[in-house]
Amino acid sequence: MYDLIVIGGGPAGYLAAERAGHAGLNTLVIEKRAMGGVCLNEGCIPSKALLNSAKMYDHAKHSDVYGVHVEGVTIDQKQVVARKNKVVATLVGGVEAAMKANKVKVVKEEAYIEGKTAEGFSVKAGGEVYTAKQLLIATGSSPVVPPIPGAKEGLANGFVMTNREVLDLQEIPAQLVIVGGGVIGLEMASYYNSVGSKVTVIEMLDHIAGPTDRQISSILQKNYEKKGVTFKLGCKVTGIGTDSVSFEENGQACTVAADKVLLSIGRRAVTQGFGLENLNVYTERGAIITDEFGRTNIAGVWAAGDVNGKSMLAHTAYREAEVAINNIIGKKDRMRYNAIPSVIYTNPEVAGVGETEETAKAKGLDVEIVNITMKYSGRYVAENEGGDGICKILMDKKYRTIVGAHLIGGYASEIIYGAAMMIETEMTIEDLKEIVFPHPSVSEIIREALFMFK
Amino acid sequence: MYDLIVIGGGPAGYLAAERAGHAGLNTLVIEKRAMGGVCLNEGCIPSKALLNSAKMYDHAKHSDVYGVHVEGVTIDQKQVVARKNKVVATLVGGVEAAMKANKVKVVKEEAYIEGKTAEGFSVKAGGEVYTAKQLLIATGSSPVVPPIPGAKEGLANGFVMTNREVLDLQEIPAQLVIVGGGVIGLEMASYYNSVGSKVTVIEMLDHIAGPTDRQISSILQKNYEKKGVTFKLGCKVTGIGTDSVSFEENGQACTVAADKVLLSIGRRAVTQGFGLENLNVYTERGAIITDEFGRTNIAGVWAAGDVNGKSMLAHTAYREAEVAINNIIGKKDRMRYNAIPSVIYTNPEVAGVGETEETAKAKGLDVEIVNITMKYSGRYVAENEGGDGICKILMDKKYRTIVGAHLIGGYASEIIYGAAMMIETEMTIEDLKEIVFPHPSVSEIIREALFMFK
Repeated sequence: MYDLIVIGGGPAGYLAAERAGHAGLNTLVIEKRAMGGVCLNEGCIPSKALLNSAKMYDHAKHSDVYGVHVEGVTIDQKQVVARKNKVVATLVGGVEAAMKANKVKVVKEEAYIEGKTAEGFSVKAGGEVYTAKQLLIATGSSPVVPPIPGAKEGLANGFVMTNREVLDLQEIPAQLVIVGGGVIGLEMASYYNSVGSKVTVIEMLDHIAGPTDRQISSILQKNYEKKGVTFKLGCKVTGIGTDSVSFEENGQACTVAADKVLLSIGRRAVTQGFGLENLNVYTERGAIITDEFGRTNIAGVWAAGDVNGKSMLAHTAYREAEVAINNIIGKKDRMRYNAIPSVIYTNPEVAGVGETEETAKAKGLDVEIVNITMKYSGRYVAENEGGDGICKILMDKKYRTIVGAHLIGGYASEIIYGAAMMIETEMTIEDLKEIVFPHPSVSEIIREALFMFK
Repeated sequence: MYDLIVIGGGPAGYLAAERAGHAGLNTLVIEKRAMGGVCLNEGCIPSKALLNSAKMYDHAKHSDVYGVHVEGVTIDQKQVVARKNKVVATLVGGVEAAMKANKVKVVKEEAYIEGKTAEGFSVKAGGEVYTAKQLLIATGSSPVVPPIPGAKEGLANGFVMTNREVLDLQEIPAQLVIVGGGVIGLEMASYYNSVGSKVTVIEMLDHIAGPTDRQISSILQKNYEKKGVTFKLGCKVTGIGTDSVSFEENGQACTVAADKVLLSIGRRAVTQGFGLENLNVYTERGAIITDEFGRTNIAGVWAAGDVNGKSMLAHTAYREAEVAINNIIGKKDRMRYNAIPSVIYTNPEVAGVGETEETAKAKGLDVEIVNITMKYSGRYVAENEGGDGICKILMDKKYRTIVGAHLIGGYASEIIYGAAMMIETEMTIEDLKEIVFPHPSVSEIIREALFMFK
């Protein structure tokens, strides 16, 4: 009998198990594939290993302007993928070590919830039945495969890929078509563009990068158009052939040749196939309904991470997992979504947190917006020849607190957590002005912006 | 008649003038050389332009492990310096534009304070006499030239350099000897090591990087020893010849061959040569004494930046300038030095803020220290093959607030401002744990450390 069974060993699951074990709960985590989940094995981490190699390759190729001249630059895709696998293995090992250190039992099997008994929840895995007083569902999400003619066949024969296969390609495709211009699509467009593919991104919306600040997604698009990526916006994919993708553009039928196709139109919570229905846990639009404490409608059943369909980000999953465990062990905590950063690891990087100009307007918030070029940062100028980065900050006029911050430019990914802290702490602009930023740094652009509010 | 005369157009001076002008003060700034001071013209900014070129060069040379292969790499020193000059010119233009935008008058002459009259302070510059109700001294600092035999002669004939000349070298010296292993010495050791010089650093103390956390300076030293830099610690330079530097090591006389010598043993406040004595402003150990509001002993005379000898960092100067101007215009503000970050832009980067293990011990603070490898960060592992970075955080045991944070590893320079904010806000560890950091990022290493406190 366990205190807690966690179903799923991704960011929500393994962190919940780690915190629960640390707090003294007798904890079991059940994971059917590798610990670390999609994020570690076929998402955030492997993509960053690939993108780091692409960055090195770009630096080698495009440093003439900085006085560095290079001949005969090549990238070895097989080596890049092999190194990525080594990075993933190292980090999966780290997660497994964390489980051991916190006395968490790990079962590497597929879980199936059999139901609730007088003793607790029973979950079957690999022929054994395990019971626990509490249950945390952290089954994550899987890529949406749209009902496009040819998609399933393509997936079966390897012509079409999801986030999983695209990270393991042994050859660089001459022509890569990416269906969906969200974060995954753009990061892969960035990688394959750098390493030499002719990349076409087809997106249904009239802009890329989903909910990103619209001006920033437009700057990002222009950067990649300059680098040779083709964007087909407002276009609907109508079919996938054996060497091409068909789509509609302004009512016209079009076709683009492809050696490989990446499907990255979105992800869907995984709520089926593991007996969730045996507990009568409520779902809505295919995701488990949770409250701000991570509780479902069934006492003792909790959920965290992508499976609740709220944010679909690994670091949101971490925090949701912590909130759930804190509530399980009787520590006051609740989930808030207003200060969760998001990053696109393209070059330039994009990072944002809180309200965008668009969401602020839609909500009727009374905000003042400062929008400045990153060229106010001396380091940015020193490191980015011809850079067109910006920093945009939104201030609530009544409270004079920051409600949103958005960056495009180098280091944005590493700077944004401080802006998240500014939102979370609700410090006023006047107090924030007293924070000392190191000079020269790109982070100073935030300080620069603070001083421009009226 | 001006409201305010600012003497010196470096970070303290130009920012003070900008803020004063913005607040409506009729402001004059007098600068004998270029606006931007040492920082912009011969310090922080030009060194970062050089180091960025070196980073690109290093990436091109050492990316085999990431799957990127290069046949021939060269760096063009003249082009690197020319680009650096362009970066500096752009940013000096930015400072001049800021003066104009805030209606600050700029006089490009040497200033001389004539004294105080019934009308105010009178300052002579370029044959004109200017008067103002208030005076801000921001004359900065200059490199210390030690009384070493041969130093002055070497400076005169170009064999010996200060921070100014080392940034303008048209040829890469085969053998570079650096006297002084502080920030400037180390950044230049980093640059010239990358571009091919045989570099020797001679340092009086038994460690490099001055007040930096000792474990981190030791990791930095090992990194550079691996790259081929020779460190002569606890050694006293006894003479500079025409092609060598003599020093004492454990009582033994030694000599190292040199094509160029960089003197970087420290900087000294500039308090002489501009009539400061005519106001009877108090100084101590050659620096102007100021209180936490930026006031000197003479009513109406303020000082900010390196000239007060307190911190000798551009971003400290910015903040001191703001504090002084706020007090001049009647806004409550005071200077605090407990949350000022410092950065060394080597590779790996070093950044710290607040107490170190050493200062905490010396002050008898009751702290708990968490010290973890950066390998807990997935992004760090993805981007740093064989990296040995660490993150060290000091918590005050009584208040459970952070009092120090120290990093060595990529992006440290851009991450550290958030740690400064943690110290400044005096948030508890428990509150800080609720901040969401983006995954995967190196910044997450701070969050990881937070969860390790007892």
